[in-house]
Amino acid sequence: MKTKTLLIAILILGNLTLTAQRRVLNMPDIPGYVTLKGDFHSHTVFSDGMVWPNIRVGEAWRDGLDALAITDHIEYQPWKEYIPTDHNAAWKIAKPVADAYNLILLHGAEITRSMPPGHLNALFIQDADSLDKPDFMKVIEAAVKQGAFIQYNHPGWTSQHPDGIPRLYPVHIELIAKGWLNGIEYFNEYETYRNATVMEMCREHKLAVMGNSDVHGVISETYMEPEYTHRPVTLVFAKERTMESLREAMFAGRTAVWYGDSLAGFEQFTGALFRAAVKAGVPYKDDGKNIFFDIINNSDLPMKLTGGPEGAPKELTLPANMVVRVRADRRYLKQPLTYSVSNIVTGSGTVLNAEIPVPLK
Amino acid sequence: MKTKTLLIAILILGNLTLTAQRRVLNMPDIPGYVTLKGDFHSHTVFSDGMVWPNIRVGEAWRDGLDALAITDHIEYQPWKEYIPTDHNAAWKIAKPVADAYNLILLHGAEITRSMPPGHLNALFIQDADSLDKPDFMKVIEAAVKQGAFIQYNHPGWTSQHPDGIPRLYPVHIELIAKGWLNGIEYFNEYETYRNATVMEMCREHKLAVMGNSDVHGVISETYMEPEYTHRPVTLVFAKERTMESLREAMFAGRTAVWYGDSLAGFEQFTGALFRAAVKAGVPYKDDGKNIFFDIINNSDLPMKLTGGPEGAPKELTLPANMVVRVRADRRYLKQPLTYSVSNIVTGSGTVLNAEIPVPLK
Amino acid sequence: MKTKTLLIAILILGNLTLTAQRRVLNMPDIPGYVTLKGDFHSHTVFSDGMVWPNIRVGEAWRDGLDALAITDHIEYQPWKEYIPTDHNAAWKIAKPVADAYNLILLHGAEITRSMPPGHLNALFIQDADSLDKPDFMKVIEAAVKQGAFIQYNHPGWTSQHPDGIPRLYPVHIELIAKGWLNGIEYFNEYETYRNATVMEMCREHKLAVMGNSDVHGVISETYMEPEYTHRPVTLVFAKERTMESLREAMFAGRTAVWYGDSLAGFEQFTGALFRAAVKAGVPYKDDGKNIFFDIINNSDLPMKLTGGPEGAPKELTLPANMVVRVRADRRYLKQPLTYSVSNIVTGSGTVLNAEIPVPLK
Amino acid sequence: MKTKTLLIAILILGNLTLTAQRRVLNMPDIPGYVTLKGDFHSHTVFSDGMVWPNIRVGEAWRDGLDALAITDHIEYQPWKEYIPTDHNAAWKIAKPVADAYNLILLHGAEITRSMPPGHLNALFIQDADSLDKPDFMKVIEAAVKQGAFIQYNHPGWTSQHPDGIPRLYPVHIELIAKGWLNGIEYFNEYETYRNATVMEMCREHKLAVMGNSDVHGVISETYMEPEYTHRPVTLVFAKERTMESLREAMFAGRTAVWYGDSLAGFEQFTGALFRAAVKAGVPYKDDGKNIFFDIINNSDLPMKLTGGPEGAPKELTLPANMVVRVRADRRYLKQPLTYSVSNIVTGSGTVLNAEIPVPLK
Repeated sequence: MKTKTLLIAILILGNLTLTAQRRVLNMPDIPGYVTLKGDFHSHTVFSDGMVWPNIRVGEAWRDGLDALAITDHIEYQPWKEYIPTDHNAAWKIAKPVADAYNLILLHGAEITRSMPPGHLNALFIQDADSLDKPDFMKVIEAAVKQGAFIQYNHPGWTSQHPDGIPRLYPVHIELIAKGWLNGIEYFNEYETYRNATVMEMCREHKLAVMGNSDVHGVISETYMEPEYTHRPVTLVFAKERTMESLREAMFAGRTAVWYGDSLAGFEQFTGALFRAAVKAGVPYKDDGKNIFFDIINNSDLPMKLTGGPEGAPKELTLPANMVVRVRADRRYLKQPLTYSVSNIVTGSGTVLNAEIPVPLK
Repeated sequence: MKTKTLLIAILILGNLTLTAQRRVLNMPDIPGYVTLKGDFHSHTVFSDGMVWPNIRVGEAWRDGLDALAITDHIEYQPWKEYIPTDHNAAWKIAKPVADAYNLILLHGAEITRSMPPGHLNALFIQDADSLDKPDFMKVIEAAVKQGAFIQYNHPGWTSQHPDGIPRLYPVHIELIAKGWLNGIEYFNEYETYRNATVMEMCREHKLAVMGNSDVHGVISETYMEPEYTHRPVTLVFAKERTMESLREAMFAGRTAVWYGDSLAGFEQFTGALFRAAVKAGVPYKDDGKNIFFDIINNSDLPMKLTGGPEGAPKELTLPANMVVRVRADRRYLKQPLTYSVSNIVTGSGTVLNAEIPVPLK
Repeated sequence: MKTKTLLIAILILGNLTLTAQRRVLNMPDIPGYVTLKGDFHSHTVFSDGMVWPNIRVGEAWRDGLDALAITDHIEYQPWKEYIPTDHNAAWKIAKPVADAYNLILLHGAEITRSMPPGHLNALFIQDADSLDKPDFMKVIEAAVKQGAFIQYNHPGWTSQHPDGIPRLYPVHIELIAKGWLNGIEYFNEYETYRNATVMEMCREHKLAVMGNSDVHGVISETYMEPEYTHRPVTLVFAKERTMESLREAMFAGRTAVWYGDSLAGFEQFTGALFRAAVKAGVPYKDDGKNIFFDIINNSDLPMKLTGGPEGAPKELTLPANMVVRVRADRRYLKQPLTYSVSNIVTGSGTVLNAEIPVPLK
Repeated sequence: MKTKTLLIAILILGNLTLTAQRRVLNMPDIPGYVTLKGDFHSHTVFSDGMVWPNIRVGEAWRDGLDALAITDHIEYQPWKEYIPTDHNAAWKIAKPVADAYNLILLHGAEITRSMPPGHLNALFIQDADSLDKPDFMKVIEAAVKQGAFIQYNHPGWTSQHPDGIPRLYPVHIELIAKGWLNGIEYFNEYETYRNATVMEMCREHKLAVMGNSDVHGVISETYMEPEYTHRPVTLVFAKERTMESLREAMFAGRTAVWYGDSLAGFEQFTGALFRAAVKAGVPYKDDGKNIFFDIINNSDLPMKLTGGPEGAPKELTLPANMVVRVRADRRYLKQPLTYSVSNIVTGSGTVLNAEIPVPLK
């Protein structure tokens, strides 16, 4: 089955099959910015991935993403015997499909060297062929001239870093000094660097904190419930939903990383997300000693609260898109309620301190 | 396990167990009103149900309902050998639990006669014992004196109506004339009267269209996916979320019925719900011939559109809480898009005619 | 809806509704015995439970159980104001329904005292009313005269044992000496005593290891995926599927406890279950250095293997009803493969040591 | 991430990732034969599919298949601009992976012509390049010389057959006369030819009834619950689980097709499957008028029984891997119970007539 008629449909019109649906990823906007969801690291058969480029577009659209980068390896094409090297092929194939789906597709490539410097993604480029040359610094320079955002990938990958500890080598420091390094992956595929200093590196050098799938196989088989309800995404706080705004926000470091049931990002952004998602209701009952009220979590991220104040629950989980009923002792209750959010990481060893105001009458 | 300590917790404080969560039923408010969700027909062990009253409160809270009526049969207590008749017992047991959960609990009873008049619920009553007397009209009079809303239950139930055709008998006409009948069930348990004239009866006599579970067993085992994502509910369009507003709206007939993936209600209300839930986005692509845009359905009700206009898809399903991507031919497209919504019933044999404006630039 | 017609159906004929289905719990028989599944601790509205007795029968049938005991409290009826004490009521109501479903229903009661002696279930009794008297030893004597199996319930329940450490008090030792104590709960509701000495008490005194739900609410809402795929059950290795065989096996201590993804029981029984469920296939590939073969786990219990031998995987999870593919180094491989099964507990601090023979040609 | 180290693992050792599991498809063997499950029609990027060949092997292994054919189009390579034509590439890449997973991989190709003759799969070939020549009959002859089984694909595909009615054209009759046509697809992707004469064509000409996925995208996204619990498969009743036995059985026409919740095949095979899966238990209750007994369905195929005999239920659904409880009136009951199985098709307009013996004592 499926000859030219169907192919034209997919490539030119980009039609959906009857069952195709786009999920709405529920993560609120924050004051002044829309919250865009992106995956800035993925592969196809044009390097060592196992799918055709338009599969990546369909996956991203169904997953509710706003932006996607296909970043095939420049220096590594294991299927070369069957597929001749063409660093721009995935982009050429995927771009018209992405346009027909209103997905922001970034032209990208993964510069693939041994450590240091390791692997780096060049995003928002014009021509990946121009990055296929031996001198690493020349490659980065060529990418930067095309307007690229440079991301240092999986800095604690044990195949390149046997101790699993992310580090900035002199070459990275040199890149930073030139303004040629713009973000670091805090999360890659299944791997997080929570106990390391990636977030501090980003804070010190004003780089964006990034988190991506680095998918090679199929997204729906890589991230399965109950462990994962969605792929890891980089949240980008942009002025509007355009390629230009996305790029501006990434260079400005306005990002956070959402992986599994956790979030990582600087307090300025994750605190705003928390306040946009979590609201306490007016107490509906007051028996003199106790007050009863609801807290709603209007996001797909559960919130795991610990260290509650006197008079309120010490621990409280606010499941995604649900309401929790709270009883508090009004004799001790201080406003607003203060909690540590154990699944929102703000730095090496720190988590978000959040406040929940209760609208007492 | 579980002796006095736990019982006190459940009965007096109404505490949640650790895993209890309240689902948010996503059905938008309409201009001027909040959309309350209620189930106005349920049973406990105090007639022929199989659960203790506080189970009903917990179920309703977790299901995201705003209001619940427990309506045990007045004339039928098959467990009488073990449980002495006490028509107010379920109310006395459930009320403090409902208060601790911010659930609007209606005091109710089901007057249970052979047909005609069949079964009728008296809602918002003060004392169910006063309804236990032989003369039917005297019972209704007593209920009405207490402020009751009278609902004619499952009018096409084949055990009482072998042909399954709902009818108004002279006794019902007499009740209507006195203002003593205020609503009719269009949906009961698993049963709908779509092909009958219940909605026309309600329209002609200005009665509320009602839909309820009439649950005897356990809600979670009665309504299971994939057939059911929630129990049937009566949507009530009230000025605010209070018992008094709920009652005012029901007497004014501002209701609709949500069952399975369908909705039934007069166009005035279901049209407003549709417009509140469904929005088309600004087209993101225009190739001269075709325009491409998204339609979001921001509700838990899928919308099944048929009979589309020239230039647009003839059929279109908008899944719950999802986005659908649409391609239309701009040469033929007329604004707004017009569709029949096959799963929103507005009368006997009629469905909602809906319009979707596309914000062309 | 639902008046006499339906009730007769449920009580006399015990008919299923259209969607009722009985799950097959896949746990193999062992040589010489059938593996019966039972829950020997549950409550109804006749003590502090929240469901009518026939709900318990329907739940047990659908859950694939062979045997059920309803064990309402003798000394505790919090709903007494509404339901007069009748210790045999649940049995009288549930027995004809159980017969119509081929479920082995045990007449039972929970003797409910402060600690010591705490709570004890009397199972296989004739008359629960005869157990309602003050003198504890007289009560046990009366139960034993009726043929009762006596089970010491939740010995580490913190409401009675603030430190959560299960103990045998002198009264229990006295019962054991008389042959009046026959089993101890190792698992109750959500609670296990893995790090305590319950299994050693059972081993020393030749008592049956028991695990039950102690359910008060609704089974399907108490044990939900992904944490639980079924309620906790006591596996009983009986000569045949009859009440008499079940009783003989329990007195003989031929039991094991299956809760969540874990199993607890003496090596004699859990080892036999493991061997009945887990089989390696003939290697299908041998490249001189490596051999490749499948291992099937034909049970609903995943097997978590650790401490594998040289040449084979160190760790291996055999998911329920699935096949795992194994590669081993034939130069080092010794037969049979030896593993510790970390989720099969055989005593305080010990787990099952299992062997898997690989049928090398 | 994922450079040479990982690639070697996948290509040479064929290792599973940690979460990979092989599902057991529960369909019983029949007397004299093992029931093999195969999908004999699938595509990769080497024609118009969207995945790399080893993805197909992993999918088939996880889905519990015994056999798979990759059948890329000979005459149609829409990605030719990027991937030079190599008709044997998918086979060369997938074969070592299949060997490491114990999957029977068939070397195949889809001969892709306009209708007539339409599309035909050549299975069990040696060299697909030799099939790339203009003369259709020469191509089939070359395939047959290599030992090929020739399958006529999707004979009612509306792109080639606008009226959707499967037909044998003179060219097919010629193939049959030469023994060069061996099977016809009764099911393809989502499409069945239940109301047509495909099964009668197979019966008359002694051809195998086939059913396959013809997958181009990803299996897990093509067949999703609740509509599909597995991909369509051809059941092959073989003497043993080897390539040679599989081939012998297919040429002998010992097949059936399992798609969605339906089965299609000649009575000889589907009747044997039914008898192997469905068993009634000894009645456990007999009240003089009624007997009560269980029926187990030990397969993944639900059985939808209609037209039951007097004294027994008229309709009965036996869900997959479940037990159903049956009440029958012993005064009228004749042995064995006779039913039509509405979801087991045995010909054009006919379904299986099945018998269930009840082991009355």
